[in-house]
Amino acid sequence: MKPVNLGEKLALFSSHWDPHVVADYNGNDVMVVKFQGEFPFHRHETTDDFFYVLEGEMVMDLEGQPSQLVRAGELFIVPKGVVHRPRAECEVKVLLIEPKGEPNSGDSGRAPASKPRI
Amino acid sequence: MKPVNLGEKLALFSSHWDPHVVADYNGNDVMVVKFQGEFPFHRHETTDDFFYVLEGEMVMDLEGQPSQLVRAGELFIVPKGVVHRPRAECEVKVLLIEPKGEPNSGDSGRAPASKPRI
Repeated sequence: MKPVNLGEKLALFSSHWDPHVVADYNGNDVMVVKFQGEFPFHRHETTDDFFYVLEGEMVMDLEGQPSQLVRAGELFIVPKGVVHRPRAECEVKVLLIEPKGEPNSGDSGRAPASKPRI
Repeated sequence: MKPVNLGEKLALFSSHWDPHVVADYNGNDVMVVKFQGEFPFHRHETTDDFFYVLEGEMVMDLEGQPSQLVRAGELFIVPKGVVHRPRAECEVKVLLIEPKGEPNSGDSGRAPASKPRI
């Protein structure tokens, strides 16, 4: 039971689109991730998708709705079932929360369900 | 489906120990709170307790374990069942996540289960 410094955790890896688990909350993985560029459009059928931008900014593209700019200090929660795609022109650092075992892409055939822990 | 700017939300109220709901995540309230001073020792029997310090610093006192200083940019998750008490010498601003209906104090007789939404 120690505080988790998210900046220190983010300094431990440089890969993009590679969430690392830093804590657990009620069966959810609490993760940090860095990314640049765009992810494929996808949806999570059974869970909301929690994003909190720690540094930089990202755009959340949403099917059938205006894209949303999300800046450092801002939270964006994608409701379950909504098709979305995060993207960022420059590297962005984000806090993510998802139920354990949920693949990034929402499709269990496309991404590992277990993320590295740091 | 809009970004939630936590600083803007925190500017909407000045009360302490008064979490305000800013978003929903899978049946959880995502909240911001300000506090100064100390809360009563308490435990949540059925849920972990998620704290992320946005501004300032707090101390988490823990029964039978060393107290932990938690600074801005740091996360602290109290596992369910663990007796704890957050406190802060100066005002601190915190992002909280708890299942909907969970009282702050972990005791349904002592705190309202429904928090204001902003």
